[in-house]
Amino acid sequence: MTYCLGIALENGLVFCSDSRTNAGVDQVSTYSKMHLFKTAEDRQFVLLSSGNLATTQAVVMKLKQDLQIEAPFNLNTARTVDEAAEYIGEVSLKRQAKHTEAGQSSFDPKVTFIFGGQIRGAEPMLFLVYPEGNYITTSVDTPYLQIGESKYGKPILDRVIKPGTSIEDAAKCAIVSMDSTIRSNLSVGPPIELRVYEKDTFEPGRYLRFLEDDPYLRQVSRTWNQKLIEAYRTLPEISWGDQG
Amino acid sequence: MTYCLGIALENGLVFCSDSRTNAGVDQVSTYSKMHLFKTAEDRQFVLLSSGNLATTQAVVMKLKQDLQIEAPFNLNTARTVDEAAEYIGEVSLKRQAKHTEAGQSSFDPKVTFIFGGQIRGAEPMLFLVYPEGNYITTSVDTPYLQIGESKYGKPILDRVIKPGTSIEDAAKCAIVSMDSTIRSNLSVGPPIELRVYEKDTFEPGRYLRFLEDDPYLRQVSRTWNQKLIEAYRTLPEISWGDQG
Repeated sequence: MTYCLGIALENGLVFCSDSRTNAGVDQVSTYSKMHLFKTAEDRQFVLLSSGNLATTQAVVMKLKQDLQIEAPFNLNTARTVDEAAEYIGEVSLKRQAKHTEAGQSSFDPKVTFIFGGQIRGAEPMLFLVYPEGNYITTSVDTPYLQIGESKYGKPILDRVIKPGTSIEDAAKCAIVSMDSTIRSNLSVGPPIELRVYEKDTFEPGRYLRFLEDDPYLRQVSRTWNQKLIEAYRTLPEISWGDQG
Repeated sequence: MTYCLGIALENGLVFCSDSRTNAGVDQVSTYSKMHLFKTAEDRQFVLLSSGNLATTQAVVMKLKQDLQIEAPFNLNTARTVDEAAEYIGEVSLKRQAKHTEAGQSSFDPKVTFIFGGQIRGAEPMLFLVYPEGNYITTSVDTPYLQIGESKYGKPILDRVIKPGTSIEDAAKCAIVSMDSTIRSNLSVGPPIELRVYEKDTFEPGRYLRFLEDDPYLRQVSRTWNQKLIEAYRTLPEISWGDQG
């Protein structure tokens, strides 16, 4: 499994991903799920991936090749971020079809992406690209998108993230969301990658990679656990009253 | 969907369930998922249910009928709680088979139960009975069992619940776990039922039913939200340093 998260804020985008891949419990590896592209100066994109690793790698390779050989349509020729999302959906679909046709019924070549970035002249945008090639974006009410093992880490996002949240606060919230997920699900694990894209910079932006024993990650995990238990202790007692 | 939770503590058992059932978004109803049985004085049982409503009702009715007609095997003749769990699994399987044989391929008659209680002479026990009729119990490391929409409400249980936790604390934690689930998933909803069974009492125990506008439920929900955001604000800032 996987847990990846993208957050669209008024001031930019936040991306966070784990790095554990597994095909069965005895075939666990570490792969980055956060992909950057060498694009033109007027744009910057980040891609997060979840699902079949072979399909993911094939799609990322194809996107890079199309850039390199300057294919008629590539990430540099896309006029908008959603045009680029459409293109990624098409590349993904084609790649999946190739392996599904081979006819292994239990085989699942599906991948889901979070794709975000900015092209000069427009606002930054964030998309979730489904295995079927279609995609959705964020809204004022739902400023974040998740793929993979999304449930454990969702409650804290719902409570904290608003479009006006600062990039720093959203990045910290992404780490907390990731920590809750790692704690509850074995198939999600470090290194954790965190990248923030600041609006109108067209630069890859600040990036951190946290290993399992990273002091900050451990401190957040420990402090959060302790504060949650403290918060829980301050809750009003149940009044059992006359009911019963 | 559904969210039901059973907790096995040194001093007794805690049961908590929501009451929303749905077959599609426009067919939403309210049904209690917490079932009590009029059993002999040397025993007390609680059953929580998740899954197909017709199967659930049929199973509960069969258990009650078997008690009433004093069938060769019924909840009163079970020598241990796990013998009773085995019996519930068998009744459930039989009922499911009846409707599966009718041959509607998209139809899913499955139900999952949490079943707990105590028979004099032994400790209280808690079981999760799978649709296949087999079952698991709790352990020192995993003192709780969940059925239905379990992920959103799991992190707080993992942090708070230990076998030595008091019944009152565990009941409060169950409410918090339920609140997180309701907040993140539309298909789980009030009324919320809460029942605690105190070890060696062989009585149904304290019971509360919280409606949507219950003042305690609202207070817990509001306070917990506020405390979580406060806790989040005290977390150490990310040091972006030289990396990136």
